[in-house]
Amino acid sequence: MSNAKPQVAVVMGSKSDWTTMQEATAVLDDLQVAYHVEIVSAHRTPDKLFDFAENAQRNGYKVIIAGAGGAAHLPGMIAAKTLVPVLGVPVKSSMLSGVDSLYSIVQMPKGIPVGTLAIGPAGAANAGLLAAQILAAWDGELLARLQAFRQKQTAAVLDNPDPRD
Amino acid sequence: MSNAKPQVAVVMGSKSDWTTMQEATAVLDDLQVAYHVEIVSAHRTPDKLFDFAENAQRNGYKVIIAGAGGAAHLPGMIAAKTLVPVLGVPVKSSMLSGVDSLYSIVQMPKGIPVGTLAIGPAGAANAGLLAAQILAAWDGELLARLQAFRQKQTAAVLDNPDPRD
Amino acid sequence: MSNAKPQVAVVMGSKSDWTTMQEATAVLDDLQVAYHVEIVSAHRTPDKLFDFAENAQRNGYKVIIAGAGGAAHLPGMIAAKTLVPVLGVPVKSSMLSGVDSLYSIVQMPKGIPVGTLAIGPAGAANAGLLAAQILAAWDGELLARLQAFRQKQTAAVLDNPDPRD
Amino acid sequence: MSNAKPQVAVVMGSKSDWTTMQEATAVLDDLQVAYHVEIVSAHRTPDKLFDFAENAQRNGYKVIIAGAGGAAHLPGMIAAKTLVPVLGVPVKSSMLSGVDSLYSIVQMPKGIPVGTLAIGPAGAANAGLLAAQILAAWDGELLARLQAFRQKQTAAVLDNPDPRD
Amino acid sequence: MSNAKPQVAVVMGSKSDWTTMQEATAVLDDLQVAYHVEIVSAHRTPDKLFDFAENAQRNGYKVIIAGAGGAAHLPGMIAAKTLVPVLGVPVKSSMLSGVDSLYSIVQMPKGIPVGTLAIGPAGAANAGLLAAQILAAWDGELLARLQAFRQKQTAAVLDNPDPRD
Amino acid sequence: MSNAKPQVAVVMGSKSDWTTMQEATAVLDDLQVAYHVEIVSAHRTPDKLFDFAENAQRNGYKVIIAGAGGAAHLPGMIAAKTLVPVLGVPVKSSMLSGVDSLYSIVQMPKGIPVGTLAIGPAGAANAGLLAAQILAAWDGELLARLQAFRQKQTAAVLDNPDPRD
Amino acid sequence: MSNAKPQVAVVMGSKSDWTTMQEATAVLDDLQVAYHVEIVSAHRTPDKLFDFAENAQRNGYKVIIAGAGGAAHLPGMIAAKTLVPVLGVPVKSSMLSGVDSLYSIVQMPKGIPVGTLAIGPAGAANAGLLAAQILAAWDGELLARLQAFRQKQTAAVLDNPDPRD
Amino acid sequence: MSNAKPQVAVVMGSKSDWTTMQEATAVLDDLQVAYHVEIVSAHRTPDKLFDFAENAQRNGYKVIIAGAGGAAHLPGMIAAKTLVPVLGVPVKSSMLSGVDSLYSIVQMPKGIPVGTLAIGPAGAANAGLLAAQILAAWDGELLARLQAFRQKQTAAVLDNPDPRD
Repeated sequence: MSNAKPQVAVVMGSKSDWTTMQEATAVLDDLQVAYHVEIVSAHRTPDKLFDFAENAQRNGYKVIIAGAGGAAHLPGMIAAKTLVPVLGVPVKSSMLSGVDSLYSIVQMPKGIPVGTLAIGPAGAANAGLLAAQILAAWDGELLARLQAFRQKQTAAVLDNPDPRD
Repeated sequence: MSNAKPQVAVVMGSKSDWTTMQEATAVLDDLQVAYHVEIVSAHRTPDKLFDFAENAQRNGYKVIIAGAGGAAHLPGMIAAKTLVPVLGVPVKSSMLSGVDSLYSIVQMPKGIPVGTLAIGPAGAANAGLLAAQILAAWDGELLARLQAFRQKQTAAVLDNPDPRD
Repeated sequence: MSNAKPQVAVVMGSKSDWTTMQEATAVLDDLQVAYHVEIVSAHRTPDKLFDFAENAQRNGYKVIIAGAGGAAHLPGMIAAKTLVPVLGVPVKSSMLSGVDSLYSIVQMPKGIPVGTLAIGPAGAANAGLLAAQILAAWDGELLARLQAFRQKQTAAVLDNPDPRD
Repeated sequence: MSNAKPQVAVVMGSKSDWTTMQEATAVLDDLQVAYHVEIVSAHRTPDKLFDFAENAQRNGYKVIIAGAGGAAHLPGMIAAKTLVPVLGVPVKSSMLSGVDSLYSIVQMPKGIPVGTLAIGPAGAANAGLLAAQILAAWDGELLARLQAFRQKQTAAVLDNPDPRD
Repeated sequence: MSNAKPQVAVVMGSKSDWTTMQEATAVLDDLQVAYHVEIVSAHRTPDKLFDFAENAQRNGYKVIIAGAGGAAHLPGMIAAKTLVPVLGVPVKSSMLSGVDSLYSIVQMPKGIPVGTLAIGPAGAANAGLLAAQILAAWDGELLARLQAFRQKQTAAVLDNPDPRD
Repeated sequence: MSNAKPQVAVVMGSKSDWTTMQEATAVLDDLQVAYHVEIVSAHRTPDKLFDFAENAQRNGYKVIIAGAGGAAHLPGMIAAKTLVPVLGVPVKSSMLSGVDSLYSIVQMPKGIPVGTLAIGPAGAANAGLLAAQILAAWDGELLARLQAFRQKQTAAVLDNPDPRD
Repeated sequence: MSNAKPQVAVVMGSKSDWTTMQEATAVLDDLQVAYHVEIVSAHRTPDKLFDFAENAQRNGYKVIIAGAGGAAHLPGMIAAKTLVPVLGVPVKSSMLSGVDSLYSIVQMPKGIPVGTLAIGPAGAANAGLLAAQILAAWDGELLARLQAFRQKQTAAVLDNPDPRD
Repeated sequence: MSNAKPQVAVVMGSKSDWTTMQEATAVLDDLQVAYHVEIVSAHRTPDKLFDFAENAQRNGYKVIIAGAGGAAHLPGMIAAKTLVPVLGVPVKSSMLSGVDSLYSIVQMPKGIPVGTLAIGPAGAANAGLLAAQILAAWDGELLARLQAFRQKQTAAVLDNPDPRD
């Protein structure tokens, strides 16, 4: 998706989050949504986080997807610095199965929202889908691709109704 | 906001959720975003839920905010029936403090996303804000109102820095 | 059990739930209870879910066993659309060990009940047993088979009392 | 409901559980299902528990509803002594909000099922409803009353769609 | 320890609990405390459970150690039927890591106590130790063996103070 | 009980634990078991804790009941310094409902056991009962009083079987 | 403490945290440690947070105490921007009792530490004490005051050993 | 680091904690901070614990790092016996993933603080870092090494921004 101007930024706190977050970019690839992907660590690169968030609107991002684990501050701190909608993905943590990640991302105080998805890869994929659904409100072709995506998804279940097969 | 065509639908599982969910409509009022508000119960009025979700796009909703408590199926089932982005608000439950509501809303399987906010009134207010941020990507005036909202919010903290006052 | 008219329907949200849910059908096979088995996804095939639930009584099902994981909406949404008793099986989820599945299934609001079993395969087996116990109130032969099943189960413990053997 | 032969037994571990469990009998009253109600404590009256369970089938009970809190052993121990289906209601505990009650009731091992409802009064009411749904499979008049109950429940939501009223 | 009259009974809900519970008997062997070991299932052999508990005092048991997992009713139900002190061992469950076992055992209502040890093998070993400590109040030789056991345990740490060795 | 030589020591971390722990002494009073009661704080008076534990056996205590809340180290540290059996009572904490107290007391490592009771007043009462049951193995009169206590407890339930009264 | 140069900064996310955090300043007052107190919101005033953290060392702070609730990012984000040691206080949240605050503060990734205290006022008081203990390593007079503080604390327990008084 | 006088003591409850705790000493090695390392078990060697804590100040330790798992009493009991600041590391437990360790360490009562780090190796590494940050307030060279450490850490992220590489 390198030629189109990215509408979605997919950021994550460390390289180890990529296993999870690539589910988001895979969905965006499928739906032909241009995106930018980058490691931005709230704790190890706080200045980069601020630069990224301050420039998000100028860079044309319509949605930001941010994944992080443990005391996951990345989605909330980006949200504090921009009005571009932020979707948060709690990455599964090695100790608390991602409950810490989930609480750190979803329990934002009144005033700064983060739309949070499920823990782990399913949540990352859904962040990609939700970003696409947000864009599709103003992009009929993307909406059509989303409709096809869903029909295919539904058909995959309908066509194989017997779990014993 | 009755004259403008609603861009946001705010639905909830029961009248008792209104105490929580009115925080969402209060924010939308503040930001002059037209909305529709209605009780739609996943469990007591499943057919109405399907009708609501099937007609959401046709009705012009760009974002749906759905609040529910306990085994909170409303946000996820609406999301299953429409491509309009759904934001879920876990209403605090009387027994498990809303952890049940949170898990029932946020842990959606791959394929059907719900962007989930914090448990309770703060989450409802943030759902209103996030909906506005989504709309603002295509509405410069709303973006300006959001910027003013945030500056006021920041100023309220900056102007009263001493907690002892 | 293909010739007899199914009295129990065993449905699940995805093919991956079959490892768990086959414990239910194994018990029904043992007890010679005719059943129907099918994948019905609340989120990926919501219309099929409604069709299934609306026709459940007409199809002669006396009990429905529904298994799902994560934000498990399948049992509760079926229950919302039929008066046939629904037994829910929380499938173990990869992230939260099935606590999310359990809360999403058991914490139903007043008005729409789901009889919930234990998380995972033991719960699925017990759903099969509970379904048989429900039917046995009106089926003396099944009751006799259940009594034999239990006596065998008890004898297996009584006959091997020493854990060191 | 004193003249009809009780089809449902509603038991609970202590008098303090009555506040919760009366929701079950209120529903049975509404639906004109005859029931027996009694305090049976697993820990303080274990012999009574065994007598009760051993005689349940002979007494004509088609469903047993058992409510208990904390280390709630009543539903599971009754289930171990009878083939009459047991529905368990986790009563809210003063310390752990009923999570202990829920786990003690729902996590039954393979072989002895308890169909578990939500924690607290909503769960008790739903136990009454689920018992009625079980009986209704063989009682057309009860089924009709259940259909009316549900239609009324649905209408109550449909007739008051605006939470602000 | 087969010749001496057993002072401790070690029971467990199923053969699969033996891996955990053998830690209790290993400690009792070490301390030369005679014990009886047997599988007693609360749910699959409730009558045996009652027989066992009713005869516990007559059989000369001074302490009963009972291990079980999931909805672990064995320790509490034995305690309900005897005045012999009961020590409960929560066996790790496959789904909830033994939190369900712990709550089901420790949260006993006022009137029927179970002294609960840690989840899993460490808890089983400690149940053996606590049983021995209880007996040692009236058995000076056992007390001496316990003192030696502890000194050895302390020395094992003191003699190897450097974790890098 | 001031004249008899105390057989049980009841200690607690702070005066605020007395509301909970007096349930233990009330039971011991009822059963005519002589006890000593004292505040011993693991964190504020560690030396007193060690003195207390080192002298416990010499003082003739046959059982120690220790109650504490939060990071409740009192029961476990006493247990580390004496072979007198220690029963732990998790006092309800203001923040985490006593789950922190429970885990801090029950999850003792292999080698140093604490027999743990339920969170809060019910657990304290049961610690008193369990202490009495331990003593009763060598005290026929106490055993008779315990039997009477239990019969009364059972009769209180049997005599009032109807929760509606 | 206004004349001395502050060695400790006490910051918190909102005015509502003051009820909790004043326990920290009360301890610092007691121990005559000069401090600065200010509201700094990670989410509503992120730029102020960065300014505060970047200038912390220059301002002579030797320890920073930061309190916040919910998705509590303040302590961790300050820690990311300074090498002054940060102590975090999880403020009790209205929905999840501060478990969300605790996880958001304590589960920091490798590389950026936050020394976390207990949830709520006790944790705030202890943050004040720990800050003083850190400073006392290089301040003999403060160490003496701390010793007196602790002796008084110990004496308060020793002098009132009977909880019934 | 054997020649320099140790400023930090790193203790742990058992040899099995070394896998976790060596992350702390690795960081101290990196930063050239002299330390002492030793196994001190609260439960198996309580007297050694008291000796260690009583002599900590005399031995010149400026910070104590204590790691333990399960009912982790080591950090809190050391803190009760010294005014040297104690940092606690919750070691992951085999049953409850370290939640028990975390609660046992962090939930200290008012009066005796333990600065708690994350569960597991990341927490151990961060304890080493926080100890170094505390020392660096009075050691310009160490501060410089810490600044270099952090810059390297930041650069490692900045230099590899693309997770797909």
